[in-house]
Amino acid sequence: MTDDLRPVTAEDITVAARASFAGAPDGRLRFLLQHLVEHLHGYAREVRLTAAEWEAAIAFLTETGRACTDRRQEFILLSDALGLSMLVDVLQHPAPPGATESTVLGPFHVEGSPLRPMGSSTVDQDGSGEPAFVSGTVRGTGGQPVAGALLDVWQNAANQLYAVQDPGQPPGNLRGRFRTGADGAFAFWSVRPVDYRIPDDGPVGRMLAATGRHPWRPAHLHIIVSAPGYRTVTTHFFDRTSPHLAGDAVFGVKPSLVGDFVPHRPDEPGAPEGWDGTWYSFERDVVLAPAGG
Amino acid sequence: MTDDLRPVTAEDITVAARASFAGAPDGRLRFLLQHLVEHLHGYAREVRLTAAEWEAAIAFLTETGRACTDRRQEFILLSDALGLSMLVDVLQHPAPPGATESTVLGPFHVEGSPLRPMGSSTVDQDGSGEPAFVSGTVRGTGGQPVAGALLDVWQNAANQLYAVQDPGQPPGNLRGRFRTGADGAFAFWSVRPVDYRIPDDGPVGRMLAATGRHPWRPAHLHIIVSAPGYRTVTTHFFDRTSPHLAGDAVFGVKPSLVGDFVPHRPDEPGAPEGWDGTWYSFERDVVLAPAGG
Repeated sequence: MTDDLRPVTAEDITVAARASFAGAPDGRLRFLLQHLVEHLHGYAREVRLTAAEWEAAIAFLTETGRACTDRRQEFILLSDALGLSMLVDVLQHPAPPGATESTVLGPFHVEGSPLRPMGSSTVDQDGSGEPAFVSGTVRGTGGQPVAGALLDVWQNAANQLYAVQDPGQPPGNLRGRFRTGADGAFAFWSVRPVDYRIPDDGPVGRMLAATGRHPWRPAHLHIIVSAPGYRTVTTHFFDRTSPHLAGDAVFGVKPSLVGDFVPHRPDEPGAPEGWDGTWYSFERDVVLAPAGG
Repeated sequence: MTDDLRPVTAEDITVAARASFAGAPDGRLRFLLQHLVEHLHGYAREVRLTAAEWEAAIAFLTETGRACTDRRQEFILLSDALGLSMLVDVLQHPAPPGATESTVLGPFHVEGSPLRPMGSSTVDQDGSGEPAFVSGTVRGTGGQPVAGALLDVWQNAANQLYAVQDPGQPPGNLRGRFRTGADGAFAFWSVRPVDYRIPDDGPVGRMLAATGRHPWRPAHLHIIVSAPGYRTVTTHFFDRTSPHLAGDAVFGVKPSLVGDFVPHRPDEPGAPEGWDGTWYSFERDVVLAPAGG
């Protein structure tokens, strides 16, 4: 090698980097890394990435890593803001017709939300928004109710923040898990979610600001529904009145996931006790595909 | 938008993510991010990246960020191990014929190495290796000596570690800056660098292990040479006897950068005082291209 004084070319480096993974025992990992080398190098070559730009990218990734904590996942946020999370969602084996569509998980999911009685409230803090009653039935694609389905729900408060972001909220606020009974029905009190900015005080926020992008997401409630024998779905219920439905900063809106927070007067039946303003109801079934389907 | 119930396709997401950067005021940044979206999405589509693989990638990047400290740069290491650092080096405007070629910076450079008198030693700790006398002249491509050139050198010790990695070494050990006089000559004592493993106790090491790659780099000394009116060069002096020249874990070897650590007996003139074993000399000029050239 050292006797060959031909200059090293960009192609030489790509060939060598690709070949370095040729002995990987796991065929899928080999495939993923060899293609990663091709695409990463292809990108650098196509844009003629400069050393200064490479340094800026290293600094950006390092800051993104530094911004990750137990309570914040800046790499998921970056993936979301680049549309990658939503692309991965769309690339999965699609649910069959009629099944509830999936969307991004987002960076605010926390394992182990409080298990709450069906029909109860996720609100652990008074005065955090306008009451909303969310209900529906978990069904299979044949229409049958699904007993024993676990719903894991989380959403933001009236101040735009999720409990995990906000030391001012009890940790379980506006989060909860609910298990369906024989009728497959679910129901819980919450508050109406509000449009919010994805966290824009870190590297991802700086990327949005530098490129003239807004950080807004349309109001939504997150829900993961799982049940034995069915495919788990991670999805949102979006509020149809949001002005940001068409410009979601993380590209998460699917038309089928948009629904209505129906307003009610305080004197209508079902109104929450002691509340004298407008309250809302949101009704929507969740339809699960069979497992392996 | 919400009236359009057509399913969202992978292409829709890519188009939307690309378009989100269309208003970026900086044209180069817009170009870089729009092409990044194309390549990142192209990769995910081509390999049909699964949600589980995406999660593993997020976890890997998060761990890589967590491994970065004041003393360790795991993202540079990752870039090095994927051949990206060397590709970026090769993509730069090449130095004119005769000028010393560049190679990777690597993750171990530390700003502000001790400024040392020409001819002195970078060894701040006894017993750390076999003495080596490194010398040459900094020249322009016309052959003229370059006065006032600053050399910034760093290398590993006999235990394979750089001082920045090794609490057992004084912080300035085997690092130093030297400024040339009117004759452009440089000379310093060091030790013979040894082959070493890139840090393999972190995420990058796990990637290498999982794919059957070795972590070895061929022995080398790092040097950055800068001088007013000349283009700065970041390069290595490689040891021709290394068994890893053809398989550098970071793809950094260029044939023109390989040289000879010439062995000498203890009784030869120039031997270091009080050393009764073999010592080495390495002689090499550094040729700088004109600035802007």
